[in-house]
Amino acid sequence: MPVIERMVESVESVIGIADVKRSRVRAIGIGSPGPLDPVNGVIIDTPNLPGWTNVPLAKLIEEKTGIPTFVENDVNAGTYGEFALGAGRGKRDVIGIFVGTGIGGGLICDGKLRSGFRHNAGELGHVVLMVDGPYCGCGKKGCLEALASRTAIVRDIRAGIAAGRKSIVPELMKERGRITSSVLSKAVEAGDALAVEVMAQAQYYLGVYVGSAVNFYDPEAVVLGGGVIEAMGEAFLEPIRKVARQYFISQQDADKVEIVAAKLGDYAGVLGAAMLGQERARAA
Amino acid sequence: MPVIERMVESVESVIGIADVKRSRVRAIGIGSPGPLDPVNGVIIDTPNLPGWTNVPLAKLIEEKTGIPTFVENDVNAGTYGEFALGAGRGKRDVIGIFVGTGIGGGLICDGKLRSGFRHNAGELGHVVLMVDGPYCGCGKKGCLEALASRTAIVRDIRAGIAAGRKSIVPELMKERGRITSSVLSKAVEAGDALAVEVMAQAQYYLGVYVGSAVNFYDPEAVVLGGGVIEAMGEAFLEPIRKVARQYFISQQDADKVEIVAAKLGDYAGVLGAAMLGQERARAA
Repeated sequence: MPVIERMVESVESVIGIADVKRSRVRAIGIGSPGPLDPVNGVIIDTPNLPGWTNVPLAKLIEEKTGIPTFVENDVNAGTYGEFALGAGRGKRDVIGIFVGTGIGGGLICDGKLRSGFRHNAGELGHVVLMVDGPYCGCGKKGCLEALASRTAIVRDIRAGIAAGRKSIVPELMKERGRITSSVLSKAVEAGDALAVEVMAQAQYYLGVYVGSAVNFYDPEAVVLGGGVIEAMGEAFLEPIRKVARQYFISQQDADKVEIVAAKLGDYAGVLGAAMLGQERARAA
Repeated sequence: MPVIERMVESVESVIGIADVKRSRVRAIGIGSPGPLDPVNGVIIDTPNLPGWTNVPLAKLIEEKTGIPTFVENDVNAGTYGEFALGAGRGKRDVIGIFVGTGIGGGLICDGKLRSGFRHNAGELGHVVLMVDGPYCGCGKKGCLEALASRTAIVRDIRAGIAAGRKSIVPELMKERGRITSSVLSKAVEAGDALAVEVMAQAQYYLGVYVGSAVNFYDPEAVVLGGGVIEAMGEAFLEPIRKVARQYFISQQDADKVEIVAAKLGDYAGVLGAAMLGQERARAA
């Protein structure tokens, strides 16, 4: 499996670049798509990477590097990264929501990543917000992911175009051949009515969802990251914040609950996985 | 404030009945409607009990009894009771959902009651399940409470009757003058088509909600209690369980996640408050 060899090469190369003694490297942390078993470091399945079924990834990397290795769900790792080093730094209770092709998330509970009974906590994209709403990629209906992910946004923009709405999106997407987060961002910036409308709807859904999640979990901060949020920038967050706060059941100290953009971009997962690896090595 | 005096009398009377030495009573635990401040034992407000605003309840009871006193949200206390002594016994991670006039809940996280950043975790009735759905008592739209509480069920049955649907509910409610949980239970048992239909809808919403909550929080058990659940009995739970499991994003070990009826009835809150009081006295 050449991927494993490339991972080992990366590890060796990073140790070289960092110029640290090998004996000082306490752990390797890996953020991977799931489902996976973080206790035993086994990738159970990865729908988008064929052939990765029941792969004991931690053990394989550990054997080849001699360094204790730990595996965690990629979005959990991202949430932990933002908690430990990014937008959630210094908070004890954080919800991380990552909006891209799908929507994933993670929960920090009292300073620790919440894994859950089946190591499956934080599947925030598959919380139903519109019962009997549009079908989700997971086969159920009305999940947040079916309403506010890039997949959902693209579906609605395509439907608008198919229905004869004028839009600059077809022109903007010519270069890459698909509607990327960057295309969406450019269309909104240019004031494209269809794009603005569809994005405003997604922002509204995200706002109601964040409000609901706060009523359920009562965190100190909600960190929003992922491709869509990154491409749209800070201005995208304000309507989400406003709607979310309207949906808080308790208005007491409502303004103390931070609703903020992620800070670490693509590094959130890598840094979070490294931090988690270090912690787990210490606890082992 | 005569209520406080009656509470103190109850405490003295219970100590007498239990026939224990006063010095062996470690703590008094109180479950109260909120919002409240469990850290300082202050009732901030109780919408249904006028005059209870910023009442330092713990301090007042402690002064009169000489016993350390602790105050917790009533539904949190109920959840803790079911976790410590009832249907959630032996589990580390539990969601408690109580369906009555409203819908309240509580979260057990790794063997502890989750209080939350603003001591407001577990407002499970005010998670939105039908975005832009019917108005909730809280002023927002589409909350679970607006779809599956007794208030919502009664609203829909009344609407059906007003629209000319035949039903035995008007006859059954004559005695008490209102649609109680027991009236609903009798109507469903008698096969009243309108009541069966409205209850099935509420069960479906509860099922989708429980599935979503499991995807978010990944607990070991979901305990369902409160007036409606108690009156309807075990048969009411099966459709909820079935829909919930369909909505689990991970089917791995899905059958290990228990979805069960509460066991302690009205005692859940009292017992939970007592257990929490004891624990907090020990930690103080």
